[in-house]
Amino acid sequence: MAIQRFHVGARMSEAAVHNGVVYLSGQVAEDPSRDVGGQTRQVLAAIDKLLGETGSDKTQLLQVTIFLADIGDFSAMNAEWDKWVPAGHTPPRATVESKLARPAYKVEIKVIAAQK
Amino acid sequence: MAIQRFHVGARMSEAAVHNGVVYLSGQVAEDPSRDVGGQTRQVLAAIDKLLGETGSDKTQLLQVTIFLADIGDFSAMNAEWDKWVPAGHTPPRATVESKLARPAYKVEIKVIAAQK
Amino acid sequence: MAIQRFHVGARMSEAAVHNGVVYLSGQVAEDPSRDVGGQTRQVLAAIDKLLGETGSDKTQLLQVTIFLADIGDFSAMNAEWDKWVPAGHTPPRATVESKLARPAYKVEIKVIAAQK
Repeated sequence: MAIQRFHVGARMSEAAVHNGVVYLSGQVAEDPSRDVGGQTRQVLAAIDKLLGETGSDKTQLLQVTIFLADIGDFSAMNAEWDKWVPAGHTPPRATVESKLARPAYKVEIKVIAAQK
Repeated sequence: MAIQRFHVGARMSEAAVHNGVVYLSGQVAEDPSRDVGGQTRQVLAAIDKLLGETGSDKTQLLQVTIFLADIGDFSAMNAEWDKWVPAGHTPPRATVESKLARPAYKVEIKVIAAQK
Repeated sequence: MAIQRFHVGARMSEAAVHNGVVYLSGQVAEDPSRDVGGQTRQVLAAIDKLLGETGSDKTQLLQVTIFLADIGDFSAMNAEWDKWVPAGHTPPRATVESKLARPAYKVEIKVIAAQK
């Protein structure tokens, strides 16, 4: 069964699709100067875009892992998440604290989803 | 291919099933006042319950990720894990240290499993 | 649908295959006295070996999660990763900081891949 890859770079690609399942790379903010709310909005927008490109959308999430550089940002991240996640289609989720690739990143979100 | 969701809340659901694969949310202890052994037992019991509801069980684990708030709890967590995990059906596993959503949580376990 | 397990131990197994998808346990260095570059090379060699045994290879990676005990090792880990990962087949990836099961471990890599 073939793998489709999206935004293939030298180090990683942004998405892979195999047998109807979409795997995304950990998404971080385009502009890491933003606060955790702003970064979360950018991350969720990036996820929307990638899911759109891979034949999925945010109603199709299967498992989401959220890494916060500071778990003290849990509520501020959730404020954005709760506005974004579609009622009746909320996914299994785990949220933990881990420092991220650059000190300015406050949130990184990893997704497995289904194609529509 | 349809997604079945279980215990669907406003923020997340506890499980999703797609194409014979079960994805669980990160499970934490019901009573976070317990020590890491007690919390691990509660987490594993919660996983058993969710796997039962989704047509799976602990012989069907595909990949397990264990987050410990303090990696110093590795042995105490394993003491409970080793009693629980079924001989001959042990899954691929990764265990790392990450602080969790509430300071009282000592262990969170994320599961991918197969339906029977 | 049957699950095939590889290197089944009392606590965990090194790989599980289900419906054409390969799940590996978090791989760590055989010799944790090595620096992060040496450990990364050992981890990637272990992944190559397991993927070979499970009917996959490094062109088939679907999602890779890299845990670094010290995110300051990001560049040194990437130097090895970049030499290893096959052009045109780079996978979705997330890299975060988490302490690992033993203090000497500097890098742990968790993989989901497709069979060929």
